[in-house]
Amino acid sequence: MQRTVYNSDHDTFRHMIRTFITREVVPHFAEWEEAGMVPRSLYRQLGDLGIFGIELPEEYGGGGETSFKYQAVIREETARAGVTFGADVVHTCLVLPYLVEYGNDEQKARWLPGFLSGELMTAIAMTEPGAGSDLAGIKTTARLSGDGSHYMLNGSKTFITGGVQADLILVVARTSPAGDADRRAGLSILCVDTTSEGFSVGRKLEKLGLRAQDTAELSFTDVRVPIENLLGEEGAGFGYLTRNLVRERLGAAVGSYANASAAIEFATAYVKEREVFGTPVAQFQNTKFVLAECSAEVAAAQAAVDRALDLDEIRELTVADAARIKLFCTEMAGRVIDKCLQLHGGYGYMREYPISRLYADTRVNRIYAGSSEVMKTIIAKDIGI
Amino acid sequence: MQRTVYNSDHDTFRHMIRTFITREVVPHFAEWEEAGMVPRSLYRQLGDLGIFGIELPEEYGGGGETSFKYQAVIREETARAGVTFGADVVHTCLVLPYLVEYGNDEQKARWLPGFLSGELMTAIAMTEPGAGSDLAGIKTTARLSGDGSHYMLNGSKTFITGGVQADLILVVARTSPAGDADRRAGLSILCVDTTSEGFSVGRKLEKLGLRAQDTAELSFTDVRVPIENLLGEEGAGFGYLTRNLVRERLGAAVGSYANASAAIEFATAYVKEREVFGTPVAQFQNTKFVLAECSAEVAAAQAAVDRALDLDEIRELTVADAARIKLFCTEMAGRVIDKCLQLHGGYGYMREYPISRLYADTRVNRIYAGSSEVMKTIIAKDIGI
Amino acid sequence: MQRTVYNSDHDTFRHMIRTFITREVVPHFAEWEEAGMVPRSLYRQLGDLGIFGIELPEEYGGGGETSFKYQAVIREETARAGVTFGADVVHTCLVLPYLVEYGNDEQKARWLPGFLSGELMTAIAMTEPGAGSDLAGIKTTARLSGDGSHYMLNGSKTFITGGVQADLILVVARTSPAGDADRRAGLSILCVDTTSEGFSVGRKLEKLGLRAQDTAELSFTDVRVPIENLLGEEGAGFGYLTRNLVRERLGAAVGSYANASAAIEFATAYVKEREVFGTPVAQFQNTKFVLAECSAEVAAAQAAVDRALDLDEIRELTVADAARIKLFCTEMAGRVIDKCLQLHGGYGYMREYPISRLYADTRVNRIYAGSSEVMKTIIAKDIGI
Amino acid sequence: MQRTVYNSDHDTFRHMIRTFITREVVPHFAEWEEAGMVPRSLYRQLGDLGIFGIELPEEYGGGGETSFKYQAVIREETARAGVTFGADVVHTCLVLPYLVEYGNDEQKARWLPGFLSGELMTAIAMTEPGAGSDLAGIKTTARLSGDGSHYMLNGSKTFITGGVQADLILVVARTSPAGDADRRAGLSILCVDTTSEGFSVGRKLEKLGLRAQDTAELSFTDVRVPIENLLGEEGAGFGYLTRNLVRERLGAAVGSYANASAAIEFATAYVKEREVFGTPVAQFQNTKFVLAECSAEVAAAQAAVDRALDLDEIRELTVADAARIKLFCTEMAGRVIDKCLQLHGGYGYMREYPISRLYADTRVNRIYAGSSEVMKTIIAKDIGI
Repeated sequence: MQRTVYNSDHDTFRHMIRTFITREVVPHFAEWEEAGMVPRSLYRQLGDLGIFGIELPEEYGGGGETSFKYQAVIREETARAGVTFGADVVHTCLVLPYLVEYGNDEQKARWLPGFLSGELMTAIAMTEPGAGSDLAGIKTTARLSGDGSHYMLNGSKTFITGGVQADLILVVARTSPAGDADRRAGLSILCVDTTSEGFSVGRKLEKLGLRAQDTAELSFTDVRVPIENLLGEEGAGFGYLTRNLVRERLGAAVGSYANASAAIEFATAYVKEREVFGTPVAQFQNTKFVLAECSAEVAAAQAAVDRALDLDEIRELTVADAARIKLFCTEMAGRVIDKCLQLHGGYGYMREYPISRLYADTRVNRIYAGSSEVMKTIIAKDIGI
Repeated sequence: MQRTVYNSDHDTFRHMIRTFITREVVPHFAEWEEAGMVPRSLYRQLGDLGIFGIELPEEYGGGGETSFKYQAVIREETARAGVTFGADVVHTCLVLPYLVEYGNDEQKARWLPGFLSGELMTAIAMTEPGAGSDLAGIKTTARLSGDGSHYMLNGSKTFITGGVQADLILVVARTSPAGDADRRAGLSILCVDTTSEGFSVGRKLEKLGLRAQDTAELSFTDVRVPIENLLGEEGAGFGYLTRNLVRERLGAAVGSYANASAAIEFATAYVKEREVFGTPVAQFQNTKFVLAECSAEVAAAQAAVDRALDLDEIRELTVADAARIKLFCTEMAGRVIDKCLQLHGGYGYMREYPISRLYADTRVNRIYAGSSEVMKTIIAKDIGI
Repeated sequence: MQRTVYNSDHDTFRHMIRTFITREVVPHFAEWEEAGMVPRSLYRQLGDLGIFGIELPEEYGGGGETSFKYQAVIREETARAGVTFGADVVHTCLVLPYLVEYGNDEQKARWLPGFLSGELMTAIAMTEPGAGSDLAGIKTTARLSGDGSHYMLNGSKTFITGGVQADLILVVARTSPAGDADRRAGLSILCVDTTSEGFSVGRKLEKLGLRAQDTAELSFTDVRVPIENLLGEEGAGFGYLTRNLVRERLGAAVGSYANASAAIEFATAYVKEREVFGTPVAQFQNTKFVLAECSAEVAAAQAAVDRALDLDEIRELTVADAARIKLFCTEMAGRVIDKCLQLHGGYGYMREYPISRLYADTRVNRIYAGSSEVMKTIIAKDIGI
Repeated sequence: MQRTVYNSDHDTFRHMIRTFITREVVPHFAEWEEAGMVPRSLYRQLGDLGIFGIELPEEYGGGGETSFKYQAVIREETARAGVTFGADVVHTCLVLPYLVEYGNDEQKARWLPGFLSGELMTAIAMTEPGAGSDLAGIKTTARLSGDGSHYMLNGSKTFITGGVQADLILVVARTSPAGDADRRAGLSILCVDTTSEGFSVGRKLEKLGLRAQDTAELSFTDVRVPIENLLGEEGAGFGYLTRNLVRERLGAAVGSYANASAAIEFATAYVKEREVFGTPVAQFQNTKFVLAECSAEVAAAQAAVDRALDLDEIRELTVADAARIKLFCTEMAGRVIDKCLQLHGGYGYMREYPISRLYADTRVNRIYAGSSEVMKTIIAKDIGI
């Protein structure tokens, strides 16, 4: 259906991104996947394009945008080109809001310029081996030194997107024991310079998909983190970590919609060109019906995503509604991409075909940013059961 | 998600309808289902409420509304009360547009007042035994008399909603043979007075659901239809019949959304009150998850329906997009209502529980107004395959 | 796939049943559905055919069969004819095992001859308004008279299949309070003569489907039940009621398989004969693919059912495996019948087409004999979680 | 459900295979996946175990087994260990039947000893770039030399499993033009020694899964193939290639069943050990219900597979029934493995967890050996539409 969600600024931005992707990403993307990460130079190029600062307040050199719609444009354009920008989403959508909201002036001055230019890449480290997404179970400790000048950080983290290449990692650590009354108390966010002694990157983890995005295990052994690198207040970490969830889930929803929409385009192009037994695949009724089903699902997702983007822009997208569209769009993308892969026959199983990568990449969308099970729990609470 | 599709006029209308349903429909609905149709008096009450004239131009005494949103309100309110208004949809959503668009001044003057008041109930007869929804295969004939004063109508029709009670039936008949070049040529619409000699209502058909809506077989044996009852031009029927399909399908989509939404309300209320093994059903994780899945699907459908209602209001909802939301909403309603029935356990199988009626009623939505298969054909064409 | 589950005795039996159905059931079935129950005369005919005694030990005049395969034949044959035998399943599959296993010699002598001939129809009353399938929550009480000659029965029951026509009803009642330690203690089974004073049939319940099967609310007000009508031991009812569940669920599985298999036959016949736009529906690729999907599912169900019938015959079908095939077959039947109805287009919504009745009838299979949710609980326990 | 399909010989074989996998495969499998193929030494070990000769007639040193059940054991055991044997399936299940059935005595004497020992690995090359699985569209040509001593082979092939490591490749080539009447005429099978001049392996193809199985593009430029390497009769290739399809599809069905069954084991173990928010994942009702659904589906698949294995053993499994179980089992495996991955949360996305590999590996099962769409076409024909 006709969309009203984008204006001419978004269109201009889309054009720029599309050109950039065509010229600078597509020709190299297979190598990057082979290497298991994008090159640092890509991040600097993205910095030059201003992508890391769209939502950064203008006073720090950013675009000052409060809308998530530019991010939506990026997801749509990378999806239709069958590529990713590596770990950029963590940098801009997860880390940036923390720095802007909880960083003090000195920290902002220290980090934001590099953040913006892509010279200082960031990551965020929450999950621990054995604890999963249960923040309250975090065991990494940060003990304040006697003179109050630094924390001594010990522990290990896993599934850290961008962890191999990051220069600065926001580490969630326990600065005091969990209370009996409140298991969530005592967590703080420390910004760890990855050149610090005692920090090391463990295994780079092999994932089912998203191969151009590095994911790592990290370990911290007596890492000294200066007190100046504490983000916000000590012990307030848990609260900080739950404030950005709406955007994170909106992002997952938009990305899923964009991937499903791209899958239909890939499949449509494929079935028109490909012949089986002398007939273009597009002429089989099954092909038509399957793509039509996909198209109807994506149309509904688009309407939902657009409504959510508009509500988010005026900060009225609720946690429960973000959960609804995250659940719907990620599950829908699973169904649609699976069907579009099937229409490719054996080619769909080959990584050189983008549908194959979309299939593997998008599987994580039902898991990250709160799994479908977590979304259902949130929604059920919202309907009063 | 927050809706912006309704304004305060719609809210006022909703309040009136809701009150009417509570007082005048709910107490009698079980009897009407038993009887297989609503009483004629209901139609006159609906006429008094102005429901039959919302979209009638003001010059004929109607509300002059061009928006479909009032119809959407009606569907939402009947759904949540677990009732229907019998065959009202045919009267207002199918027949009215034909009368307004193709009727001449004399015809409008003759029929619209009764139409509006509910004293002249209408139906439309297209489907024939053996021909299904293939208009081109219509065998009912209307032969113009030598003096040009009337047509002699012969044939039979089936699946005619409202056919038992209708006073005036728009019959699609062949006034000249189908051309070799154009199988669709030669069809005309005749408005048949049901008191005419030679007209008879055959069997009232037993349906899986929608029991308060009469559905009939009709037969026409040498029925004289005065030339003054020809609607529009002779031979132009096929074109007329395809012009209103967007609204018809939008109506099916809205109704499906409304039914699914109501199903969630029924199930939520049920699981909160009902205990199994000493625990309210609402407290089982499966209950929460199932209702959450339903809620996410309905939220997406709502966004899609609202977008479509807005586009329809400015007459920019395309045939293909109407097909997309019809397909999505009807299929979604099938899934959601089935799950909500299951949550009711054995009670869900009892007709006194509205979920049971919704289940049976909504099954036809994937079939009527163009089946899911027809929708897929339309969508596929739109995506160029 | 080739079946080995039936031998020539089963084939002979099948032939007899098929002939009977064609001659004695099909011509009247629509009337019976209209009436909401089959006539008593049908039960006597079934008695004459020996159907009520297949599994009755030979010493009581029965067939002495321990196999469930004859029941399977009955389900297959009724399904393919689009009919039911009313409440026969309760009589033969639920009540008979209790009478045979827990009845004493005097009771068997008193009841089995009439049971066998169809002159003494039976039902079993467990569910109560508000308590659902939670046996432990039963509130109907049976107080032993001071002289020990009879019980005084008070309470009400609902969803009682065959309750309108039954002559003898096995009522589950509380003969002593539930213990703190064991909520299941204190239940007994009393056989209540429906001519007893104080017994009355309340509403005949309207169901979504299975219309030729009467379902009723029953009420018991100071009904005197002679001590001679206590089945088995006082207080042992709960244990009795759980011993026959494997067969009950196997029956639901077989019935679901049979209905799905019949649905494919109905749809195949329909699509071959029916034309749309000048082409038989069977020639559309979508039709072929949908029926092929259904056929593959039914083939798997058939293999599972046949394996289960063989295991049951040697009494080695476990509770968990019965739950597995009940879950699989009932869910599969839901999917398959829905698709087969869709292939019928508008005709699928008309009750005169058997697919419409199958759709409504089979919906309860996911609910009765232990809902899908109960089956999942049992299976999960079996896999150790 | 209890299985009767295996006897004690199968059990002994299973024990041997399981021990071998534990000792010789599991410790190295991650490396092999990294390398994109298993080492040649594995094939020689498999040869030593006798795996390549189970179905080879005893006169050639094989096991003389006509049952597919040993292959089924291998699939079950590799699945539960989360490994594969590389391209062994092509060697034993696809190539061997051709050599045995169509090879002449000299060819058998020449090739079977090496085939059996794993020193002569084989592959089969049918698919061509652009022609897909349409055998009739094959463009690779083999022109007989003037003296009749050899063919000159030219063309290219793609998607050739085992193509990188094969010593002998059965190439389907056109030895005479396709007739107007019969597009399938003129195809022959030539056995090409991969040390021949003019033969080269093109790209090793990157697949979504099955990474330890090499898949390649092959090119043939004026490759001289001695007339002694023609398999069977010239021009009879098409017929040869369609005779083994039942076994191929049975193999895909069994493998899918085995993978789904293994997925349940992986998920069950995971959810029992893993805690979320202080509760083992196994204790959530959703976990129980999801695994129970999977278990029911796998139970049905097992019954179907076992029935098919028994029928195949007596050569009575029809083409249509093989299509039914291939369709059912591969689609079922898709559903089950997806759900089991989801239960692993983020770990399910990591390649070190076998569920992740199963997910990627099993996706091809709905495509190869005849896609689901091809299966549906076959089944539809069988039900007469």
